Amino acid sequence: MKLYDYVLSPSCYKIRLLAALVGVELTLRPVDFHPGGEHRGPELLALNPAGAIPILEDDDVLLTESSAMLVYIASRAAPEWLGDGSAREGARIQQWLSFSHRLTATLGSARLHEMLLRPGDIRGLQSAGKQALRELEAALTEQRLSDVEFLVCDHPTIADIACFPYVALAPDGGISLEPYPSIRLWQRAIRALQHFIEMPGIHRLHELRPAPVRPEQGA
Amino acid sequence: MKLYDYVLSPSCYKIRLLAALVGVELTLRPVDFHPGGEHRGPELLALNPAGAIPILEDDDVLLTESSAMLVYIASRAAPEWLGDGSAREGARIQQWLSFSHRLTATLGSARLHEMLLRPGDIRGLQSAGKQALRELEAALTEQRLSDVEFLVCDHPTIADIACFPYVALAPDGGISLEPYPSIRLWQRAIRALQHFIEMPGIHRLHELRPAPVRPEQGA
Repeated sequence: MKLYDYVLSPSCYKIRLLAALVGVELTLRPVDFHPGGEHRGPELLALNPAGAIPILEDDDVLLTESSAMLVYIASRAAPEWLGDGSAREGARIQQWLSFSHRLTATLGSARLHEMLLRPGDIRGLQSAGKQALRELEAALTEQRLSDVEFLVCDHPTIADIACFPYVALAPDGGISLEPYPSIRLWQRAIRALQHFIEMPGIHRLHELRPAPVRPEQGA
Repeated sequence: MKLYDYVLSPSCYKIRLLAALVGVELTLRPVDFHPGGEHRGPELLALNPAGAIPILEDDDVLLTESSAMLVYIASRAAPEWLGDGSAREGARIQQWLSFSHRLTATLGSARLHEMLLRPGDIRGLQSAGKQALRELEAALTEQRLSDVEFLVCDHPTIADIACFPYVALAPDGGISLEPYPSIRLWQRAIRALQHFIEMPGIHRLHELRPAPVRPEQGA
């Protein structure tokens, strides 16, 4: 599978992260995503007229929505990441995939405003982002009452991967995660998963340990 | 299943439409969704802190995202509306569920601006809505080259239901569907489905026939 990728994009990271966790090898094609970059050029626009990345290609399958890529990779390599096949779990996973659009539109837009000075009503974005975080916190707190660490069931699903990156990067948009203890515990559980990979701003769980002699790649 | 419903909401209509098409009986609970209405009152906010409808309740399942409700109803009553179970079709359906969020944010917001005078950059919304329609038109035109009438395969899926209402109501937001012949043929195919139901602004395929003596309920 070939992923058109930008290292600072949380949506691209969702795909890299799930692929790493389930052992799918991606061929990365880095895209210059700065304003005026090649994502608005003819090669990329032919693949995605919306001018956005990630884009995933696999034989004749071409996907331009990150949630669809998560479904595709999990279906191919790790169906347990799609739930247990019941209507109930399927619908709950879909609930969080839809919710992740709100995270992108609020936390993600606040981040772009703060990092790239993209125009926008930053107070309104932060306020809507905090509302989404309160809903996520309430859902995760309820899960914890049943000793469940993840959003839908007792193991991670694509729902967790869809929501994790924009939440983890909320501080880039000026939104502290301090008021949300269940969210912070949930993030620890994801960051502790075997084969977890990092992106700039999102670190493995080992970050607080004293660093040994620094290895070449992560640790 | 109990649906908290508002007759003019295209998202609520998605749920009523799929339920009708697959023969699921819904108990409708009409909600006063006008500004200052009860969707911001304590009963509804307890079910959905985002203050939005539709809301679907079924035993201990509570869903507040229309795409999740489509998955739930199809899983329960008509799994063929979820595709053939392959990674490819599952991902393509998800692609259109995600795309439907763009339709809501563009065509839907333009409609609210025009109908309810909700503030917004109407030119920007219309322009982004037309871009989404061009992408939909291109995809449907490619499907028609393979003699396929629907978005994902040769029968309708929840992808069609997720995208249909906001497209059909685009003219309410000042966006004509005249430039999109494949979209218009696709809409005819959906409106011709057995057990199709209407909402204000979206009619059955028989609308152009001379009306007989007017029956009590639709016709």
